[in-house]
Amino acid sequence: MDLYDLLMKRRSVRNFDAREIPAEIVAKLVAAANNAPTGGNLQPLTIVVVREVERRAKLGEMVGGQPWVKNAPLSMIFCLDFFRLKRWAEASGTAFRGEEALSHFLIAYADVMCAAQTVVILAENYGLGSVYIGTILFAVDQAREYFAIPRFVLPVMVLSLGYPKTVPKNIPKLAAEIVVHLEKYETLSDEAILDAFEDKYGEIDENVERYFERAFVEAVEAERQEREERLEAIKEGMKRLQIKNNAEFLFRLRYPADFMVELNANMVDSFKNAGFECFGS
Amino acid sequence: MDLYDLLMKRRSVRNFDAREIPAEIVAKLVAAANNAPTGGNLQPLTIVVVREVERRAKLGEMVGGQPWVKNAPLSMIFCLDFFRLKRWAEASGTAFRGEEALSHFLIAYADVMCAAQTVVILAENYGLGSVYIGTILFAVDQAREYFAIPRFVLPVMVLSLGYPKTVPKNIPKLAAEIVVHLEKYETLSDEAILDAFEDKYGEIDENVERYFERAFVEAVEAERQEREERLEAIKEGMKRLQIKNNAEFLFRLRYPADFMVELNANMVDSFKNAGFECFGS
Repeated sequence: MDLYDLLMKRRSVRNFDAREIPAEIVAKLVAAANNAPTGGNLQPLTIVVVREVERRAKLGEMVGGQPWVKNAPLSMIFCLDFFRLKRWAEASGTAFRGEEALSHFLIAYADVMCAAQTVVILAENYGLGSVYIGTILFAVDQAREYFAIPRFVLPVMVLSLGYPKTVPKNIPKLAAEIVVHLEKYETLSDEAILDAFEDKYGEIDENVERYFERAFVEAVEAERQEREERLEAIKEGMKRLQIKNNAEFLFRLRYPADFMVELNANMVDSFKNAGFECFGS
Repeated sequence: MDLYDLLMKRRSVRNFDAREIPAEIVAKLVAAANNAPTGGNLQPLTIVVVREVERRAKLGEMVGGQPWVKNAPLSMIFCLDFFRLKRWAEASGTAFRGEEALSHFLIAYADVMCAAQTVVILAENYGLGSVYIGTILFAVDQAREYFAIPRFVLPVMVLSLGYPKTVPKNIPKLAAEIVVHLEKYETLSDEAILDAFEDKYGEIDENVERYFERAFVEAVEAERQEREERLEAIKEGMKRLQIKNNAEFLFRLRYPADFMVELNANMVDSFKNAGFECFGS
């Protein structure tokens, strides 16, 4: 398939069949990741490849009970790794202080994501599906302990991969004209912004199941795979909070604005435990 | 060409010919970026597409005098955009506080880089070359002013694209075994780390030109395009600092460890000017 068509039909996949990914394909995925762009060619990346069933289950728990992490035959933990550079610098009679330097952190984080997205695209090309799990950021202490990750290494993203059993339908997106600006930033009016998101999501649907299928496919898929009655809890939340539009659904129920800020303190602590010092609480 | 081969031969390109990139290709690049994975489908991304010669030149200056930014027919400024989400939330009777929430910031930054790397790979597929410019992080205030970027939007990465006039030869990389670990992190001994980097870079070369061609190709290319005598300054630095190995070259001369930490203060201020509050100085 043409690469453009492949990229345009790509969806995050959360429903995998049990088929293993052949070793040759895994080797190609990680080789391509290792050849992704990296600032100053510093390569501040380590990938922990997780295939053992028990470890997959444990990782799935850590990231907040996402059943696809356990069910995917393979997950990669993408780590921002300054340990190797620090040891190398010290063993060479100098010092590397990337864990204290915000620019080193941000460029390294960009490097890690370039590698991860390279894996996503090459995997798609091999008929694999994948899904990013960002909630590893809330489980840095646990992940570091369980996967023996030393100080100065921060697990920042998980990618779970496998052959798709099902692929979600198209999901709503902002029109490209909203996201792409020519020569300078074009500040939209509130009205234009409201229209853009209305075009994206449509009206909130009285049929909550149908609404979630469109706006919160993870919750629907989680229920399918684990029957955890998550959807019931969300439906109850929608009633209790009297959610009446898409923005309220996102920022009062799914990512409650104040709660997201409260989460900073633990995250900053866990980063500090890992030796990373660039973040305020 | 097979996608794996394409990814393995990809190099950052800094020498572009003058040929314009056809509008249909630009449209495909940004459409693919807009369909890249994004956490919670929030799409906190705006891409400013820069093609006007004067703007390219100005952008090139801002990011530290990188001649390829001016010479590339097209650059994209990848912005982490919470403005749109904040306005939408407020206009919908709720609030989004991503600019204060570290997890929102880090996931959004990951989203931005997924989009950027999608452009890199699709561009490569169309015979284009590209190079990331991370130093926009040091010019956030200037870039926001010049490109009319409002508060709550942070330009975090530039990607310059064009048809390559020359492509650099293979550059040294750590072996994949160093970067990819199975089931858990494998902490290497200092000796193994020294060996890994020795395998990557080889000995520092008495022939400084030849060494830079391998270890600091940007400086060589910058001199070729602007004859700015940058290489002379670096050579002089190597003598003055008595640089005797690769780690010293990187962390005493190219990215001096203490200086990189000193840069935090200005960067954190410029992020605060943009409304982003998650970073300590």
